[in-house]
This record gives sequence, structure tokens and C-alpha cells, in this order.
Amino acid sequence: MGILIKNGEIITASDRFVGDVYCEDGKIAAVGAGLSKERAGDTVIDASGQLIFPGGVDAHVHMELPFMGTESSDDFETGTAAGVAGGTTSIIDFVIPARGQALLDGLAMWNEKAKKAVSDYAFHMAVTWFGDDTLKEMAVCTREHGIPSFKTFMAYRGAIGVDDPELIQVMEAAKGLGALVTVHAEHGDAVVALQKKLLKEGKTHPRFHAQSRPAPIEGEATGRAIMLARMIGEPIYIVHLTCKEALAAVTEARSRGQVVMAETCPQYLLLDDSVYEKPGFEGAAYVMSPPIRPKGHQDALWAALSSGLIQTVATDHCPFNQVGQKDMGKDDFSRIPNGAAGIENRLALLWTYGVLAGRIDVHRFVDLFSTQPAKIFGLYPRKGSIVPGGDADLVIFDPKGTSTISAKTHHHRCDRSIFEGFEVKGKPTHVIVNGRVQCTDGKLDVQRGAGRYLPRRLGPSQGAQAF
Amino acid sequence: MGILIKNGEIITASDRFVGDVYCEDGKIAAVGAGLSKERAGDTVIDASGQLIFPGGVDAHVHMELPFMGTESSDDFETGTAAGVAGGTTSIIDFVIPARGQALLDGLAMWNEKAKKAVSDYAFHMAVTWFGDDTLKEMAVCTREHGIPSFKTFMAYRGAIGVDDPELIQVMEAAKGLGALVTVHAEHGDAVVALQKKLLKEGKTHPRFHAQSRPAPIEGEATGRAIMLARMIGEPIYIVHLTCKEALAAVTEARSRGQVVMAETCPQYLLLDDSVYEKPGFEGAAYVMSPPIRPKGHQDALWAALSSGLIQTVATDHCPFNQVGQKDMGKDDFSRIPNGAAGIENRLALLWTYGVLAGRIDVHRFVDLFSTQPAKIFGLYPRKGSIVPGGDADLVIFDPKGTSTISAKTHHHRCDRSIFEGFEVKGKPTHVIVNGRVQCTDGKLDVQRGAGRYLPRRLGPSQGAQAF
Amino acid sequence: MGILIKNGEIITASDRFVGDVYCEDGKIAAVGAGLSKERAGDTVIDASGQLIFPGGVDAHVHMELPFMGTESSDDFETGTAAGVAGGTTSIIDFVIPARGQALLDGLAMWNEKAKKAVSDYAFHMAVTWFGDDTLKEMAVCTREHGIPSFKTFMAYRGAIGVDDPELIQVMEAAKGLGALVTVHAEHGDAVVALQKKLLKEGKTHPRFHAQSRPAPIEGEATGRAIMLARMIGEPIYIVHLTCKEALAAVTEARSRGQVVMAETCPQYLLLDDSVYEKPGFEGAAYVMSPPIRPKGHQDALWAALSSGLIQTVATDHCPFNQVGQKDMGKDDFSRIPNGAAGIENRLALLWTYGVLAGRIDVHRFVDLFSTQPAKIFGLYPRKGSIVPGGDADLVIFDPKGTSTISAKTHHHRCDRSIFEGFEVKGKPTHVIVNGRVQCTDGKLDVQRGAGRYLPRRLGPSQGAQAF
Amino acid sequence: MGILIKNGEIITASDRFVGDVYCEDGKIAAVGAGLSKERAGDTVIDASGQLIFPGGVDAHVHMELPFMGTESSDDFETGTAAGVAGGTTSIIDFVIPARGQALLDGLAMWNEKAKKAVSDYAFHMAVTWFGDDTLKEMAVCTREHGIPSFKTFMAYRGAIGVDDPELIQVMEAAKGLGALVTVHAEHGDAVVALQKKLLKEGKTHPRFHAQSRPAPIEGEATGRAIMLARMIGEPIYIVHLTCKEALAAVTEARSRGQVVMAETCPQYLLLDDSVYEKPGFEGAAYVMSPPIRPKGHQDALWAALSSGLIQTVATDHCPFNQVGQKDMGKDDFSRIPNGAAGIENRLALLWTYGVLAGRIDVHRFVDLFSTQPAKIFGLYPRKGSIVPGGDADLVIFDPKGTSTISAKTHHHRCDRSIFEGFEVKGKPTHVIVNGRVQCTDGKLDVQRGAGRYLPRRLGPSQGAQAF
Repeated sequence: MGILIKNGEIITASDRFVGDVYCEDGKIAAVGAGLSKERAGDTVIDASGQLIFPGGVDAHVHMELPFMGTESSDDFETGTAAGVAGGTTSIIDFVIPARGQALLDGLAMWNEKAKKAVSDYAFHMAVTWFGDDTLKEMAVCTREHGIPSFKTFMAYRGAIGVDDPELIQVMEAAKGLGALVTVHAEHGDAVVALQKKLLKEGKTHPRFHAQSRPAPIEGEATGRAIMLARMIGEPIYIVHLTCKEALAAVTEARSRGQVVMAETCPQYLLLDDSVYEKPGFEGAAYVMSPPIRPKGHQDALWAALSSGLIQTVATDHCPFNQVGQKDMGKDDFSRIPNGAAGIENRLALLWTYGVLAGRIDVHRFVDLFSTQPAKIFGLYPRKGSIVPGGDADLVIFDPKGTSTISAKTHHHRCDRSIFEGFEVKGKPTHVIVNGRVQCTDGKLDVQRGAGRYLPRRLGPSQGAQAF
Repeated sequence: MGILIKNGEIITASDRFVGDVYCEDGKIAAVGAGLSKERAGDTVIDASGQLIFPGGVDAHVHMELPFMGTESSDDFETGTAAGVAGGTTSIIDFVIPARGQALLDGLAMWNEKAKKAVSDYAFHMAVTWFGDDTLKEMAVCTREHGIPSFKTFMAYRGAIGVDDPELIQVMEAAKGLGALVTVHAEHGDAVVALQKKLLKEGKTHPRFHAQSRPAPIEGEATGRAIMLARMIGEPIYIVHLTCKEALAAVTEARSRGQVVMAETCPQYLLLDDSVYEKPGFEGAAYVMSPPIRPKGHQDALWAALSSGLIQTVATDHCPFNQVGQKDMGKDDFSRIPNGAAGIENRLALLWTYGVLAGRIDVHRFVDLFSTQPAKIFGLYPRKGSIVPGGDADLVIFDPKGTSTISAKTHHHRCDRSIFEGFEVKGKPTHVIVNGRVQCTDGKLDVQRGAGRYLPRRLGPSQGAQAF
Repeated sequence: MGILIKNGEIITASDRFVGDVYCEDGKIAAVGAGLSKERAGDTVIDASGQLIFPGGVDAHVHMELPFMGTESSDDFETGTAAGVAGGTTSIIDFVIPARGQALLDGLAMWNEKAKKAVSDYAFHMAVTWFGDDTLKEMAVCTREHGIPSFKTFMAYRGAIGVDDPELIQVMEAAKGLGALVTVHAEHGDAVVALQKKLLKEGKTHPRFHAQSRPAPIEGEATGRAIMLARMIGEPIYIVHLTCKEALAAVTEARSRGQVVMAETCPQYLLLDDSVYEKPGFEGAAYVMSPPIRPKGHQDALWAALSSGLIQTVATDHCPFNQVGQKDMGKDDFSRIPNGAAGIENRLALLWTYGVLAGRIDVHRFVDLFSTQPAKIFGLYPRKGSIVPGGDADLVIFDPKGTSTISAKTHHHRCDRSIFEGFEVKGKPTHVIVNGRVQCTDGKLDVQRGAGRYLPRRLGPSQGAQAF
Repeated sequence: MGILIKNGEIITASDRFVGDVYCEDGKIAAVGAGLSKERAGDTVIDASGQLIFPGGVDAHVHMELPFMGTESSDDFETGTAAGVAGGTTSIIDFVIPARGQALLDGLAMWNEKAKKAVSDYAFHMAVTWFGDDTLKEMAVCTREHGIPSFKTFMAYRGAIGVDDPELIQVMEAAKGLGALVTVHAEHGDAVVALQKKLLKEGKTHPRFHAQSRPAPIEGEATGRAIMLARMIGEPIYIVHLTCKEALAAVTEARSRGQVVMAETCPQYLLLDDSVYEKPGFEGAAYVMSPPIRPKGHQDALWAALSSGLIQTVATDHCPFNQVGQKDMGKDDFSRIPNGAAGIENRLALLWTYGVLAGRIDVHRFVDLFSTQPAKIFGLYPRKGSIVPGGDADLVIFDPKGTSTISAKTHHHRCDRSIFEGFEVKGKPTHVIVNGRVQCTDGKLDVQRGAGRYLPRRLGPSQGAQAF
């Protein structure tokens, strides 16, 4: 049975027109004006006065991630469900093998965990060390498992971080495979030195987390990763970019024509480091890496979204509860699990504080939210737009009305929201996932395990996809 | 009668899929897969293996422009016809009143000239002086004539150029009207000083044209225009940007979030200043302002196209014949009429040297060639994409085959081509203008006067078009 | 009779050693260790534990300047005396002819006024318009009157400001004469537009003076002046640089090797724009152009002093009394006379907040305070250092003790001090001017009219003085 | 017995005047005009028409350095003698312990080697690894041996290079000791990756040495070292800076006020990478790290000298003979010993191509050649200027005449000169070392072992030496 959505304002990364979308067998079958293809039994949705976006693609999430002695509090079921509630219908999570563990062993573990997902999912593969078999395993990931993107951490040395010779090897390997390297860019050793110094001075409060990884540490690592990618002749994607220093490196590279892509997250766009001054230990909720930056960086990031210097907005969704998890670092900021929830809030925040605030236009919104992550990581045209043949992942959005984000009402399995109290405008009336309405006016109707694994394939040159 | 184009690969600024387009009454009626809407009498075009682009929008052309004692050699008929031959189906020309002439008098003159056009046209209004009635006339242009974009020349002082107080007044007026100011950015007084110095030294050859307006002169004026726009709180569009210095100013502004848009032209992307060393007086063919730049600038411009720092590619089509026009400056480079032909070559050059060379992807190509000029100047969605309800301006493009640009074969009414000898790949098999096939395999079938005037309207905020 | 100063720590722009200085006939006769040249009747000063600096050269002051309907409140006698009290023993004032007035007429007026000076003085010549005789007069100034530096105002259009064609002519003329052009860099027309807008909105308070000339307006004009100087091939000196935007332009130019020099003033180093929020009309005391800048710019200026990007610190001394002068603009910030007193405070402020605060070293201090202004403007070696043959202008400075700047105690003829309440360390125990002790422990012993006119001569290339 | 030099034009980093210098007991006893202190037996030199500079300080040389399987071909005797011939009267060499060797063991070795020196010498201590005792040893070097500067190599990983955690430890240790860290800034791992790639492609010629360490590799490491120094709050000195990329990092840091100092060398100022295209294996003579850069970088370095962005010019003197040494890399560029001779040519090249070419003035020349290296590394005022009490190291320079640099005539023990054929103007007529004329009109009269070790002490803050 199909779904006919009629008279909505269809908005893509480039176009905008009033029309109809017909979905059949989980796919978009037709887009046009005055479609009359429905058959008996089809659902008809009148979308007059509403907007139709492609379902969101969140390219950076961590469900049930073992990290810093605990595990992120959303599993693949609750996390993807929260995504659906917020208009995000596909995720790319990260397989993160332990140092010494084979990539494919890690993949097996993540495959198992992800079976619970309610919506479609893909994986990036993190390369956390470079052993004799790593190159071969990277080839298997790319060619047999549809995982052509490899994540590296320049921070977290000694745990999941790599050093520069390892990073170079990953880049060389990816180049050979036509795969893409993504980088968490912070100078890990400098962080360690600052952590030691601060803790030695008795500075244990969450605010010192931010002081232990200031913006120049991210700017430097971003520039270094870009230089290495340039030497090797490989595109590069910077995850969760947060500051002017890193933007300067990206801008310089793109101005030379180097293929450098960057992602930021709503928390870096909307919060400043005054959050670390919240009473008591509440600042711990905002402990993530990179940290929330001082005032001034946020405007630069918005400008970069609007001017095309940053290509995607993901969430780095990685929730930990204040009680029982964050409080492990009560006496030592360096032991606070890094991360926060966000997958449910991306659409609402970008729409309200981006589009409605005049910082980005509707097309740029769709591009950042859905189309670019899908294109960059090889999910397009199956995901990321509204075209015949694509998966029927759609958000029908009513621009009227206002609501308030709160941990009391969000679908994240987390006792805090870093966006607590933020007012947002509009709401999805229907979220359609794979041709089935899974959320209606905020009421979820999802199925554990309905999500499918999405093997991916990159074009010959990501980011500058030749004809 | 309609046209059904079947099984082409439809390419927009964001999407790409194989499908059909049905055109009726000069409009695009439907886009989809497996359309079967055609009626008896309809033309059916099998576009299998071919690409379908929206018709090109050239936002910067000068047909039959009185300039430097002569008139550009293409009139609205021959110029628009050359455009159609090259896949450009809409133009925006410039009404350029003389200093002291009323804007509306100028408009009347251009309206008359433009009646001959074979394809649709719009006008920018040049403000070449600021009199007591100018503000009122700008309001009439914007509100009654659909001309919400005003061109100013920072060069050509004493003729059509304005000084900074005038430029400020134009910007203030445009802000009040919700209109857009576009700027030819060169420091005119510095040019005059250098011209005098060079001529005094007996340096009359065309090569000294380039030396009389080096890149810092454009960079400075670009930065100045951007600063003034910032002070006034008005978006700004820089026409024919050619050099790194100007790009640096644009990049700095966009990095701050200022709404600054920029255009470049194929000649600045593909030629370097060695053209001025051609034998005899042949360099005169390349005399235009700004001039062709030294090696190095071109790569920076390509990088800016790919990274989104430049939004449009226009041609500044303004041809003058070598014999009888350019030779007016045989003994004095400053008397050579400035300009060259290009409207016919934009698609082929961008495709061959942009997309096929891996410098821009197919979507960026469509965006630069058609969608962005239409959006920025208020022609979208009537022009600039392939959406239901839009005008049926389409290019069916066969990517196979190679040809060579030459003045011997081009449709420009000009005895030289600045791209003489450039090999280009692919060709339009059909160019459809307002629902009628007007060019088939290079054979024109256009109608003098068939072009319609396009009144325009800008959204509340160009460049960051809020919801 | 001579003066023998013994056992002081002699500090020059490069060197530092304990030794003696012997002055005879108003000149420095010898510098060394263990000098024993004194004759009967000579004064002997024991400078043990004290520092000896060359007397200060203030390259930017305005005594009894007719401006904005009044006249700066220090005349050449009181102004130079205040200078001596503060360790400044030479000044360069500005002849500012009215628009239409001959340069030499202006010079005659200033010659007359300056006769009262207690210490030596020179003049810059302002070119406030460019007439038929201006070039010839500039030649006479340079060759016959020892005035090889010409000041231009990019602000104050309509009054003493010049437009770009005039500025170009001044630069071309200066190039021919081997003279130096100095520039007050603000985009005057943009200022006028902002003033109009603010006043129209009823914004008349002194704080709006700052808002009518924000930093980008200075940055732009600085970049423009530099570009014009580059085109013409002429060195350029930017007076009273205040902001990051202007510094960026200077840095870019110096990084290319262009001869660009810049000056800043203590008020731009030490005050931020919160001064405009003083109660009532007190902010008027800080009305000057460019205005005091927001926080953040000051650190950048200090960094530029230390790194050599700015070459001199002058005062732009141009006092107006709050009562009877500043209050002319009670109801309209644009009528507040622009300027403030400062000649007496330069040494103390640079020493305390520069050297003692670790921002600049002692040599850089001497360079900024004395040597560079003397060298750049052709007073060296007569002024600006401690070398045999130079004028005996010396400051013996006791680094101990603390005092507080106040209008109650300063020697400026002005009812306000913009540095009111600033604590400063150390004090001159003796200020020797032309071989005579004119200030002892703060007690002046100056002679009206003792100052001599200083004709100047520039080397073949200022700023990059070839062998 | 003393030396009286009469009527020379004395030139210091700031001053210039005609006068006399009297030297006694190896020290400068007096500087003045009309000195008449000489005693019987004193040498009197008439320096009329000649210039007097302080003797040069070369802060970067490697005599008899064991490196890449051989040893640099000048020992401390021949190397310092060549220095004297070229006006350089003090050197700072580097103790370079092997990985695992104690710093003090290294020092003992170098002490032994250096006994042969004909002129005074000091040492930097290289920290090539960081062991349990390194911090303690650094303290001993600083406090007991007068070695307060520590060299680190970011290149040469696996040999003498350190990784970032080690570099951080060195910086932290230096901060505690008030010592200065100097950095050879190249990303060693990227170099290794490029070497492997090139060699794998059969690219063994010396030209590929340059391709294996392109400018971005130096720019990145420079930026990284600066960031680490910033985090730790420690000044930093970049040795042999060669390229625009590294300059950009230095400029950015100095514009923020960070204490960053940089050195370049004559070969980077005067040669471009066309030297690697010399016939046969001759390019090997120019194999050094960083390599000689493409055209364009040289002008940027000269501009940085003139504008104060670079503080010193050293030579990195480290000669290897073409025959028997360089030819070890006949079949593999990565085995060519890195380095070249230069100590003798620094004065002549800087004078001819700097001062006489109008790129730097005479004072800047003295500063770069002598005063700044002495000040930065704690040798001033004993070395680096012409002040009473300083060592009598002087160059009497006759600006007339021309000669040509050649391996046939130089005093370097090396069969090639990288400046072969360069014409230079002027020559030292007398080089006085420690109060003794050791070179007259090019004829050396040096004494093996006459050189003394120079213990050094840094002020409280190098580079911004507070009062």
C-alpha cells in the first residue's frame, strides 16, 4: 500500500514548489503536481500549508558506545526512535574497535547491537590502531561491507587515538580504496599535558574540561590533518568542528581548492562556555570533546554554514546520564564521560535558530540536515532528497506552533538535555520512514528491528564528484 | 502542443535521476519517472543517454551597448540567438543611462532595443549618477518595472562611474526598497593615474591595458564596496570578480556572515595575461575591464567556484569587432573598446573545463550556470531549475563528441573569439525555450521578438532567503 | 658650560650600558665610560641608579589648532612645556592650510604661532586640497623649508579632507620630491552617512561619535591608502592607527615588503570604548577621530608594537576644554571638537604599561618614543638617540616611585585628562633640552621662545634606508 | 696593548656616526669622537671612509657533526677560521647527543672537539629524546654550563627527532628553567611517507629531496610548535625558516603578541629550487633540510627581514664534500648528507643583496647579523654590539670593490660552494677578534685554540626583555 502526500510545499536542497509525492513499496515513486496515482488502500495525507523535507541523515551518532568506563545511554532502539521523533530517519554510527582488536571483530559486535534499530543505519569504521592486517581489513570493510569511511581520533592518545604515522597509513590506505577519512581533530598530547597541569593545581571542576582543550588545540590538529591529506592527495572530512581557529584552516584549504569538508553540531552553534558555570556539577552535562566554546565562535560557525564553508550538521549524539555516569568524574573532570544527547533536536534547532532567524535559507537547511551527509557518505540518492527511486523517508512539517525542549519530554534515554528550555518553532506532523508513517504529531509508532543496514559506496571523488 | 522528453538524466543544482519531463503551454507541467501524459500532436524526444539541464541564465550581458564611442556588436536578436545556440535561454542585460539622463528614459531606450530578443530577458538598472529624482526613479524601477537590482561602476569615473557618496546613496536607497546593489569594483581614479603614466611613457600597446588596472586595484575596490555595504546593512553582489585580492575580501566578509555574492566569467577562469602578448594588435581582442590576470589567479577562482565562495558564472558578453571597433585604440590602449563575446560558450566551457576536469561537480555546474543567477536576481522558480510550473527552458545535452570554438563558426556577431581553438566536449542536441525547440544539433530555429521581458521580484533577503 | 652626567644606565634603541654623557654647547660631545672631560663651571649630575634616555620626539601634535569652530587649548608655549615636563623634547606639529589657502601662507601662520615654543619643533605640511600651485608649493616646502612630509586626511571631506584623485596627486608629487605622505585613514563619506543616520534617529550623545566611525571604516581607508601608495611606488605612514582591521592591512603590506609605517597613540593602547559611557557628558572628553575602540583592539596594538608592525607612538595631542569647547556638541556629537591632551603622558604611560608590564622591552620603548619618529621624519641623528654630535636632549629617569596622572596636576592647559587616575611608575629627575636642564624633579624651568625650528631632510628611502 | 680605530663610521643596530673605538685587553674600552687614549705600542687603524660593525654572531652552525654516516667537513678550527675570514667572530654550535645518550656526555664530547676553535663559541643543547634524567640534565646545562637554549628536531624521527609528547616535556622543562626552546620545524612523519613513495616510484635524484619535504610540511610543523609553546606559555625560536607557510604561522602568532622568534639563512634568501636541476649530481650540493624553495618564497623572507617578522640570519653551516660524502646518496636522495657550507659568506651576502639592494637598512643588517642573535641567546652585551665593556670583536669594512664567491677561494673545507659565482661588494679590511686583528685584507692570522667557551644567561623574558 502506498502513501499519497498532496499539496505540500516540497523543499529540497535546491528547489521549492507545491506538489505531491507518491510513495510505494517503501520508495518514492513519483513527484509532481496533480498526481493521481493512488490505489485503493493507499493512505492520503493532505499536506496543504505544510512543508515536505527529506528525512534527516545524522552522520555522527554513538549508540550504546562503551566509553570511559561506561556506555552511552541510548541503545540503537531508543536512539533511532528519538531520531525518528525529531525527523531524522537514517544514522551513521561508528564501529570503534578497541586498540588491538580487529576491525571486523568490531563490526561484528556493532552489527549485533544495531539489530534493534527502528530506522536505517550505516557505520563508519574507526581505525584506532594500525596493525599488520589493518589495510586488508579496511579493504574488506570498503568492498564487502559497504563501509567506505574511516574515522580517526587525533585526541584520546593511548586509548582510541592514533599518532601521525598511523593517521598517514590510514589516509594512504583510504586513498588506495577510494574511501574517505574523517578526523576528530584535537592535539591529544597537548590535552593530556593541560589536564595534568590543571589537576595538579587542584582544578577538578567540569569547567576545567574546557580549559584543558582550548580552541588552538583543535585549530592546530585541524590544520595538521588537512596538511597530511594534502600531501597524500586524499579528501578529508573534519567531524564536529567548533571554533574559528579550525575554520580558518578549513577556509584556507578550500580557498586553495583542496577537498576538505567539515561538520558541526547544534551544541557548538547554540551554546557558549558559560554552560560550565552552571551550579554544582550541572556543567558536567556539557562535558564533551571538543568542549563548548567561548562566545564569538558560534557566529563564525553560523556564517560558515551560510557561506558553504561547513557542509553538514550532525549531532555527535552520545548521551550519558548525570546520575550514575557523569558523576564518575565528580572529583576529576577528566573522568566525566564525554558526550550528550541531541539526535532528536537537530531539525527543530536548525529550523528555529537557523532558518527562522535568517541565518540560513530553507535549501541550505535541507542540504545540511539531509542531502550533504547522504551525498558525502555515499547514501544518495537512496537517502537525502526527494527523488523518484529514493527511499520514502519524509518529514511533513507544520511551521506553526511553538514547543520547548526538555529532558522531561524528550525521547532520549538521558536525564538531562543540553538544550533544556530552548523554544522551537513548528513540528513534524508525520515522519515517514521507508514508506511507513512512524511518527504522527509527536506520537511514535516504531518497530524494534525494522531498521536496515545501509551499505554505502562513494563516487570516484567525494566532494567534487566528477561527471 | 506539448513536448515529452523521456528517459533523460535530469540534473538540477542538487539532484540527479533518470526520468521524464513534460512541457505544455511553455511551462514544465510534470517531472517524474514513467510519465505518460502526452497528447496527440505532442513532440516526443528520447533523451536516453543524454542529460537534461535547466536552460542557462546569463546575468551579465551587454547587447548593442553604446560604449567608448561605438556600440557592442551583438544586438538583442543576434546576442540572444547566440545564447540559445549555447544553451543560455535567459539574459539579464543592463540599462545604462548616460550621466544626467533619467533612469526611466534609459529604460525606455532599452525596452525598445530589446524587443528584438529571441529569448526572454530582464534588466539590471545602472545608476550612473545620483540626482534629485534618482531615489524616486529607483523606487519606480523596483516596484513598477520589476527591476530590483541596481548596478554601479566604481571605475569609469567621469563617464558612467559613481563616486563613493553616490554609491552610498544607491546602497541606502536599495536598502529601503529591498533591492540589490551590484558593483563593478575597480578603483577608477587609480586606473586613470596609471593610464596617464603609461601613456606618458609611450606605452600604448594593448598589454598596457592590463598594467593600468592590476589586481590590487580590483581587490581594494571590492573591499571598499563590501565595507560600505556592511555599514549600511545591505547585501552586495560583485560582478566579474577576477583575482585573489578580490576573493580575499569576499572570503573575509562571508566568513563574518556578511551577505556578499560574487560572479566570475569564463575568460577569467580560462585565460591568463599571456593573451596580451599575441602578435600585432591581436591582444586588443582581450581588452576588457577588469583585464585578464596573470597565471595563478585562475586556480583560485576555480577553487572559489567549487567551495561556494563565488555563486555565479556570467559572461559579461559585450563584443566588439577587431576591425572597425577595437582598432580605434590602435595607438592608445585606453581607447580600445572594452569587452568581448562569450554568451554562446558558457555552458561548453564550464562543462569541459569545470565538470569534466573534476573542478566542479554536475550540481555545482547547474547552480552556477542557471539556478543561482535565477535565485539571486529574482527569476526563480520561473527560471533556473526543472520544477513543475517553471518555464520550459531546457537543454538536452549529449555528453559525447568534441568540437572546437572558433570565430568562424560561432553565432556571435564578432570577428574574433577569445576562446578561439578551445576544444569542448559534448553538445546540446535540443535547446528548448519557452516550450519550443529552438536549436537542434546546433541549428537555430529562433524567432526575432519572441523573447519576453521578465519582471523580477526579490525575496525579503537575497542570499539568505528566510522562510 | 657643559653638563657631565655620570654613571647612568644609558639606554638606546639597541644598546644598554652604564656610562657617562658629556654635553657641551647644546650638543652631546662624548659618550663613554669614565669620561673626565668636564671643565670648571660644568654641571655634574650623578645618575647612579638612574636611566638615561634620549629626549622624546612626538611626531603628531596640534598646538593652537583652529578646528571645528574653536582652537586647541594648548599653544606652542604651554604645549611644548607640558612635553618637556613629560620627557618629550621635540615635536612635529602640522601646518593645516584651509581649503583654498596656499601651503606657504599656512606655513607663515604656523611659523608665527610657533615662535613661542620652549623646545624645538618641526612641521608636517597638510595638503587639504590640490590646486594648480600645490605641486610647486610642495617642492618649496621640501627643498627650501625642510618640510619633506605631507599629511592628508581621508576623513573630514568638505573641510580639510581630500578625495582620492587629490590623494593620488599628493602621492605622485611626494614621490617626485622624495617626500613622505602621511595619512589620516578613515572613510570620510561613510562617516558622514552614519552621522546623518544616527542624528536622524535622535542619537546625539558622545557615545554615538564612536558608532559613527567604527573600525571597518578605518580598516578600509588604511587598505586603500596602502594600495594607492603601492600603485605609485611611494612609502606611506599611517597616523594614529587604532584597530585590528587597519593592522591587518598594514601587516599584509609589510609581509609583501611594501614600505608602510604606522603610528599609534597611548589612548588607543590603554582605553576602551567604555569611556563613552561615563556619566553625563563626560564621554565628550574622549571624542577624537578615530575614536577609542572596543576591548580587544588594545591587545592587538600592543602586540604590534612589540613585534615591530607599528613603528612609533605619538600622542595626537590636541586638547579642548570640556567647559566652553567640548560642550559645543552638547546636543550633537558631531559638533564636539575632536581631540584630547596627551603630550606630557607618553613616556610615563609607555614605560609603566609597556616596559614594566612586559609588553615591550626597554629598547623598543626608546625606539617608539624617540628614535623611530626621528629617523622616519628626518630628524636623526640630530634628535632621537644619544650619539656624539646629536642635540643634547636627554631624560634622566628614576625608575623608583609612583604617581597618578590627573588634570589637577598636569601641565596641559586642559580641564580634563583622559588618563585621569592612571598610576605611573618612575619619573624624570632631569629633562635636558638643548644642553640645558629645563625640568628638575617635575619643576619646569623653560624659556618661552627658546625652541628652534627644525628643518628636516629625508634619506633616499625612508623606512628602508639603503646604504 | 690596545687598538685605536679612528674615524670610522660606526654602525650599530640603531645608531650611525663617525667616531673612534679604543680596544684594550680584548675589550672595547671607549667609543667616541676624537678619542686620544692610545698608549705606546698600541695599534692605530685609520678607518676613514670605512664602516665599523660589531663582529658577527652565527647562532646556527655544525662543526664536525656526525650525521648520516659521515661528519661535517669543517672542524672547529677550520670552521671558525672561515667565520673570521667572513666577519663572524662568535658561533653557537649544537651539542647533539645520540638517542639514549646523556646530555652531559654529549657536552663532554663537544667540549673536547671545540677546543680547537680560533674564535669564541657557545653551545645549544639538542634534546633528542626525553629520559628520566633529562629534566635534571637540562637544569645542569642551564645553571652550571651556561647553556640555556635547547634544540629540538620535529623531523628526523627515529634518529635525533622527538615526538610531540617529548617536545612538550622539553618546553615544560625549559619554562621551569627560564630557558629557550628552538625548533627545527618539519613534519618528520610526512617526510618519511613522501620519501618512501618517491623512492618506490624510482625517484632517486637530488631534486626529489625537495619534493619529499615541500613547504606545507614546514608550515604545519611551525604552526604546531607555536601552538604547543602557546599552551605552555613559553617563548619559542624557529630555526632556519624558509617559506611563506611558516611565515604565516609566525606572523599570526606575533600579531597576537606571542613571543615567537625566527631565523632564516642566506641560502633560503638567495637561491631557488632550480638549483636541483643542475647537471648530473651537482644538485646534491644543495641538499639540506628544509630544502631550497621554489621562486616566490625568497621575496617573502626578505620582506620579513625588513619588517621585523624574522629576527636573525644564521647559516646552518654544515658542509659535506661532494666527493666522498654527498655521493653516498648517488642512488638514493634520502642518503645524501644534509647540509652545506656558509659561515664565511653571511656578511657579504647580506650586505650586497640586502643592504645594497635596498631590502634592509644598515641597522637592520647589524641587528640580524650580530645584535639579535647575541641578545636572544644571552651573549649580549659581551657580544653583538659596540659598547664599552663588550668584547673587542669588530669588523672594519671597506664598502668599495667587488669579489666573487667560489669554492676555489673560500676558507670552508668543502669542495663546493652553494653560492659559487655570486658577486659581492665590499670587504672586511680588518677583523678583530677579542682585541686582536685576526684577518687583514682577507689574510687570516688565527690561532688554533684561541677561542673561548661562552657561557650564556638569558634575561627573565627573552624577546620581550622587561626592565
